[in-house]
Amino acid sequence: MITPPSQDALSAARDRLAALAIPTGALGRLGELALWWSSVRGEATPAAPSNVRAVVFAGDHGVAAHGVSAYPPAVTGAMVRAFVSGVAGVAVLARQHDVHLRVQDLGVDGEFPDLDPAISAYKIRRGTEPLHLTDPMTADEARRAVEAGAAIAAEEIAAGADLLIGGDMGIGDTTTAAVLTAAILGLPAVDVVGRGTGIDDAALRVKTEVIDTALRRAQDRTSDPIDLLSALGSPDIAAQAGFISAAAQAGVPVLLDGAIATAAALVAERLTPGVAPWLAAGHRSTEGAQWHALKDLGLEPLLDLGMRLGEGSGAVTAVPLVRSAALLLSEMARLDELL
Amino acid sequence: MITPPSQDALSAARDRLAALAIPTGALGRLGELALWWSSVRGEATPAAPSNVRAVVFAGDHGVAAHGVSAYPPAVTGAMVRAFVSGVAGVAVLARQHDVHLRVQDLGVDGEFPDLDPAISAYKIRRGTEPLHLTDPMTADEARRAVEAGAAIAAEEIAAGADLLIGGDMGIGDTTTAAVLTAAILGLPAVDVVGRGTGIDDAALRVKTEVIDTALRRAQDRTSDPIDLLSALGSPDIAAQAGFISAAAQAGVPVLLDGAIATAAALVAERLTPGVAPWLAAGHRSTEGAQWHALKDLGLEPLLDLGMRLGEGSGAVTAVPLVRSAALLLSEMARLDELL
Repeated sequence: MITPPSQDALSAARDRLAALAIPTGALGRLGELALWWSSVRGEATPAAPSNVRAVVFAGDHGVAAHGVSAYPPAVTGAMVRAFVSGVAGVAVLARQHDVHLRVQDLGVDGEFPDLDPAISAYKIRRGTEPLHLTDPMTADEARRAVEAGAAIAAEEIAAGADLLIGGDMGIGDTTTAAVLTAAILGLPAVDVVGRGTGIDDAALRVKTEVIDTALRRAQDRTSDPIDLLSALGSPDIAAQAGFISAAAQAGVPVLLDGAIATAAALVAERLTPGVAPWLAAGHRSTEGAQWHALKDLGLEPLLDLGMRLGEGSGAVTAVPLVRSAALLLSEMARLDELL
Repeated sequence: MITPPSQDALSAARDRLAALAIPTGALGRLGELALWWSSVRGEATPAAPSNVRAVVFAGDHGVAAHGVSAYPPAVTGAMVRAFVSGVAGVAVLARQHDVHLRVQDLGVDGEFPDLDPAISAYKIRRGTEPLHLTDPMTADEARRAVEAGAAIAAEEIAAGADLLIGGDMGIGDTTTAAVLTAAILGLPAVDVVGRGTGIDDAALRVKTEVIDTALRRAQDRTSDPIDLLSALGSPDIAAQAGFISAAAQAGVPVLLDGAIATAAALVAERLTPGVAPWLAAGHRSTEGAQWHALKDLGLEPLLDLGMRLGEGSGAVTAVPLVRSAALLLSEMARLDELL
């Protein structure tokens, strides 16, 4: 049961925006973003987000061994270490914007004996089965992954999060996200396939075929989200769906990253309808699946920089815009104060 | 005489970008921006801009009394006070991003006896003549305004600026910017006219007519930039042109704001060819003139948020992107360090 964002706060914010010493609509998307921020924070002039917390959900995808990615699965584990040591892209951006960054291993096909064991505290399994050939995980695993994401969200909220971000790391993840998006929205493979890390035309044909085969295999299993995640998902994406759903249930807004986060948001909306008003879209990914998913969720991305790094990097890059929107609404003069 | 940005630094930065632990091109526009930043700073991995200095050039435009704006000219002076007291939009954004903000009255039709006299130290005149009826200012005034902008740039560079921003405040300024853009690029009024602060269809027809009349009046005076500024410019825009030109001559990069800054950059390029490589475009304005001017300068804006606030606000909003680009290039791991 999801309570909608505050209409009273929205209406008060709209009045203030209209009274500011600027031409009507001159803030463009920042004005709309300010209204959203007011509604999700339940205040006419809420403070800018000061405790933004990002979680990167990591996991391997069995399909990665079947020619859909330009990179070997071993990269997933290496990147987990790069998040921890602060040299991954999203880690650099998180430092810049004072965003708390956490990496969580949900399904990496490897172990991290030398890292803090908390990183794998919610691990569901090592890798997944290839989703075009068989179910990537069991229904029980899918359920536990969703619950893990909800528990992670609860921990971040308990730590004071006023804005949450989910990112994903996993070679093969754009294939899984494309399949989930297509299954939920009833789209053909060609509408959701993308170049991911930058595959060539031949690999793109393989990826399209794999997505098509997976969709045909799981045809009638799209109505129950747990069954869908078992048939076509992965622990990392299932966890991000649980994370987004739990955040919305708790009334904490989420800034979405790219194709994987947006697919997870589609799943979250099916797990608990009413999620979408708690979301903003940080950036336009280069993946077609995200375009369709955002349209379904009624979201328009803030940035369109051609980024396709994943990891939550697009959302973290957009954090200063949310802060700008909040600050402009609360700190600018009203016209009647100036003249 | 403008020295181009460093090709050695660009080439070293390109090598490092290619070696980072990310798929080729995954940073999108942030990757291109990082290369630009390296070239203008002359280092492979330059520090992120830490002394960003923005100057708002204020001035009234005689044409504002002729039905081209939704706001009365008195707003210009009121906004100068709002910059000083920190409640204007760009002031809020500048605080957020640690950007030093300065407002300079080049041609406001009013005096500020109660403010720091330095604000009007470079004042050229009070307002301008309506540019569709007669020359808005003399050639001597145009020359002094350009020199004032150069002097202001020199002061900001002496204060340690590593990135400069010019903004504009002046009711009627989008009309002047549109006329200058059309005159330089040989475009008809209909290609450059925009809604500015948000005029209705009737005012838009008046504005188009005014632009057309001005262009016909000054037809053959586009080859010499000082003559052009005298025929169709204003002290604020002439000063911003001088500011941009001086910055490029000193090898200091400029992040452009919207339609007015981009028109000033077009003039700067005519004053001193070779300016464009020192520029990046902060945001896409809603004014058609900017679209054409950016195309001529070979620039693609970073943000496209539908902002039309002026004041340099779009460029200041884009400052964190320049910082992100610099930080990603220097702080991310290379792939060979990870595997």
